[in-house]
Amino acid sequence: MNPLAARTIATLALLMFSLTQGLRRAVQTKPDSASTIFGTRHRTWRQTIERVGCVAGALSALGVRRGERVAILSLNNDRYFELMYAIPWIGAVLVPINTRLATPEIEYILSDSGASLLFIDAAMAHHLTALRDKMPAVRESVWLDDIASPDGMLHYEDLTAYEAPEDVFASGDDLAGLFYTGGTTGRSKGVMLTHTNLVINAMNAVAGIGFNSDTAYIHSGPMFHLADGASTFGVTMAGGRHAFVHRFDPVDVLQTIQSEKITHAQFVPTMVNMLINHPRFGEFDISTLSFILYGASPMPDGVLRKAMQVMPHVRLMHAYGMTEASPIVTLLDPRYTTLSGPFAGRHKSCGQVALGCEAKVVDANRKEVARGTAGELAIRGTNIMKGYWNKPAETAAVLEDGWYYSGDGAIMDDEGFVFIVDRLKDMIISGGENIYSAEVENALSLIEGVAEVAVIGVPDEQWGERVHAIIVPKPGVTLTAEQVIEHCHEQIAGYKCPKSVDFRDKPLPLSGAGKVLKRDLREPYWKGFTKAVN
Amino acid sequence: MNPLAARTIATLALLMFSLTQGLRRAVQTKPDSASTIFGTRHRTWRQTIERVGCVAGALSALGVRRGERVAILSLNNDRYFELMYAIPWIGAVLVPINTRLATPEIEYILSDSGASLLFIDAAMAHHLTALRDKMPAVRESVWLDDIASPDGMLHYEDLTAYEAPEDVFASGDDLAGLFYTGGTTGRSKGVMLTHTNLVINAMNAVAGIGFNSDTAYIHSGPMFHLADGASTFGVTMAGGRHAFVHRFDPVDVLQTIQSEKITHAQFVPTMVNMLINHPRFGEFDISTLSFILYGASPMPDGVLRKAMQVMPHVRLMHAYGMTEASPIVTLLDPRYTTLSGPFAGRHKSCGQVALGCEAKVVDANRKEVARGTAGELAIRGTNIMKGYWNKPAETAAVLEDGWYYSGDGAIMDDEGFVFIVDRLKDMIISGGENIYSAEVENALSLIEGVAEVAVIGVPDEQWGERVHAIIVPKPGVTLTAEQVIEHCHEQIAGYKCPKSVDFRDKPLPLSGAGKVLKRDLREPYWKGFTKAVN
Repeated sequence: MNPLAARTIATLALLMFSLTQGLRRAVQTKPDSASTIFGTRHRTWRQTIERVGCVAGALSALGVRRGERVAILSLNNDRYFELMYAIPWIGAVLVPINTRLATPEIEYILSDSGASLLFIDAAMAHHLTALRDKMPAVRESVWLDDIASPDGMLHYEDLTAYEAPEDVFASGDDLAGLFYTGGTTGRSKGVMLTHTNLVINAMNAVAGIGFNSDTAYIHSGPMFHLADGASTFGVTMAGGRHAFVHRFDPVDVLQTIQSEKITHAQFVPTMVNMLINHPRFGEFDISTLSFILYGASPMPDGVLRKAMQVMPHVRLMHAYGMTEASPIVTLLDPRYTTLSGPFAGRHKSCGQVALGCEAKVVDANRKEVARGTAGELAIRGTNIMKGYWNKPAETAAVLEDGWYYSGDGAIMDDEGFVFIVDRLKDMIISGGENIYSAEVENALSLIEGVAEVAVIGVPDEQWGERVHAIIVPKPGVTLTAEQVIEHCHEQIAGYKCPKSVDFRDKPLPLSGAGKVLKRDLREPYWKGFTKAVN
Repeated sequence: MNPLAARTIATLALLMFSLTQGLRRAVQTKPDSASTIFGTRHRTWRQTIERVGCVAGALSALGVRRGERVAILSLNNDRYFELMYAIPWIGAVLVPINTRLATPEIEYILSDSGASLLFIDAAMAHHLTALRDKMPAVRESVWLDDIASPDGMLHYEDLTAYEAPEDVFASGDDLAGLFYTGGTTGRSKGVMLTHTNLVINAMNAVAGIGFNSDTAYIHSGPMFHLADGASTFGVTMAGGRHAFVHRFDPVDVLQTIQSEKITHAQFVPTMVNMLINHPRFGEFDISTLSFILYGASPMPDGVLRKAMQVMPHVRLMHAYGMTEASPIVTLLDPRYTTLSGPFAGRHKSCGQVALGCEAKVVDANRKEVARGTAGELAIRGTNIMKGYWNKPAETAAVLEDGWYYSGDGAIMDDEGFVFIVDRLKDMIISGGENIYSAEVENALSLIEGVAEVAVIGVPDEQWGERVHAIIVPKPGVTLTAEQVIEHCHEQIAGYKCPKSVDFRDKPLPLSGAGKVLKRDLREPYWKGFTKAVN
């Protein structure tokens, strides 16, 4: 007998991962415990699944079919969270939209994804007038906010009066979401993530970060981005609770950590920096906070040192990932987040590959390089996206034989610790030498008086490109280019040091994920030159 | 564009789980750390993967093709462990055989599985003469032991001279192993487990038990059984180390915990009992031991109490599973392993459902029952077997709509804690009342002087079945049936108490997994009656 005959295709589908399983597990194991907290609104898992089921029923009643795309354009809130389960419940596809985009970019995503429904909140409502005639595929918009909806627009709470349909058990290779990347590099692409992709990431998060039913997680980064989403499905699966703040605001975050006894958070380094340097930092009791996952961009040593000083009870874990990997690729065990002792130096690594995937560093011909050599990081595993929506050529360019070629420059050491050296596009080639801007930024961040720093390559007749630093000094501090360059020479090789420095008094431009938008910084310098700036 | 078009079938296969990925992760992250320890033989992960690759090459050279079955009949050792990766490396299928079986049972498994190769050690060699002409499918036997192989038989170490082929990346739904169940209930069936099944169980083990790269796990239960295998692939994936003892022997185990600084172990309750009551228990330093996973049968309160007294530094986790579920289904957070405080009573539960799966309790019509009501436990998830090898009818009987019907009686409480009440076949129906033998055994185990106890139903003219206890008293202790029954009445409802008691001085018969063989105990009582005793 063919052993496969024992399992029919229908049975096989049912044995696969489904995103809503995690929600059912939370309800089964913690029915009357807190699920979501937003402002003064507290719900239990039993209430949440009831609401999610009703909203799923409403989506069906609004004509949304399996495989159809449903867009969300909103700041963080508990309803956003509910939609992240209600949409997959009927087999539809989540399309979370970056809230910092301009109207034409939003229009592009709505049109590219073909979303038939748009959930929107008051903070984003200003786009509606401009979009009105420009989103023909969108049959209906639904108001996500607490304040009354504009005339004639459905309110989210209206949807909770519907009857819950049976979960269609979308699973396995079924599409769960389209996550549009972009901001730092070129035109936005819809990353197709499946149920398996997101469930495996959730299991990696639980195993690697250690979420359990006592976890209280604060969603302070934007929910449209998987840097926050990395934890969403894992915290639910573990039966923890979710608190939301509209957007990252240091005082809101500190206040919520105190009032909701938050245990886990995820911040990008700029947010950590803003928190620990906030004048009111000391006013709040954040003693319940035990864990910060940080990533998306490298943490300057100076910030890390201060974070460890002012929050000694918090374990800090460096994570690295990308939307195309659902997103976790590597995690750094917090024991390595140390600036001294036998493990010092490893804190600059983003860690070792997560359980469900494999990583290697390759050369320009996609051959693995020796450990210690810089190259491109490639990743293989069940967490890797299905491809880019409607972009077969872009998909084929990055997916080959099951490996995803990330475009990130990395070095792997003898124990599999990965050090991200740069986006390959951020690498500076000066006088034939490869210079990784992150390394230079790290050195500059140690200078007393430096608040923010970005290093880019700018055109140079002699060197092709030269290393250029853009520095935001702390208020009241005056620095000179000479001081900065001199300091840098004490830290790193001369050819890596900036040859020119610009100072600015406004913050560096950030992407929705909190990454410095180097494309924007490079643009004025490269006008009239041929190097692509994105 | 059809979104599926972006992923070809070939790519899809590569994105699935593969058992050997975990081995590659261990090598990448801990290349020069200990992998296996057996007696005085210590190896590193780099050495292990080299040996595994060579043995995979030898298997190919011996003509083993993808999908072919390879049997192992051996006590525990490090080579057994290597085979658990070398066989999947070439896409072949592991067939670990129960070492306690009689020759005809072994013959049945070899013939049913169609294994073409048999790995065997000296302890099992006595079967060879009897089997010689009775395993026509077996082309070759290979000697696994340290002592010289019998004339003309290949030695395992000869295989390590071959060249390593490329990993075929068997994955996803590909068969990884046939695990023959049996012992307690009837004819042995080959449980077909896939790569996905075993990898998901490994991730559940890492997330639930907390294996990490510091874990030192002792394989003391038989490796052919997934009660031990539950941890094998997870410990590797986490980069921990494996120590092996030939078989469970209290002194060997204590000695190895001390010498190899073992942190994690898995025992059945009978083993825990033997360890903590061993006269030499106090001689060994077992302070590194921090975690015991126990399961396969319920832990009597008396044993649990003593274990917690004599090993206060050890966290005890009750696990429940079965081969058909790869095997983990539920895990009990160690905070509930307590006999007092607010969580008392929960220690009798086997815990809440593991991350990657769902569980429910159903009635005879497979409809979910209310919480608190006993019924049959059903399980759904990516950990559920593909089916029984060559047994479509038996497969269809237990797999329906993605759910596996376990045949285990269980109660689920309001927070999803599962209490196994009995194998449905072990349930006693006396005077129309359902009586769960485990509950009665628990009460009897509290009697001073009781070493072992089993409760079965025996034929009774008045009651249909009556509750009957079989007790092994501690050495030198004399008990009477009256004492036992009287004690029982103080603990549980009268209708559940034994109406008759037999005493025996030899230990109860155990299956390979350490479960009491109730079938054997029932047999003499049911001779001439119609109730099936298996």
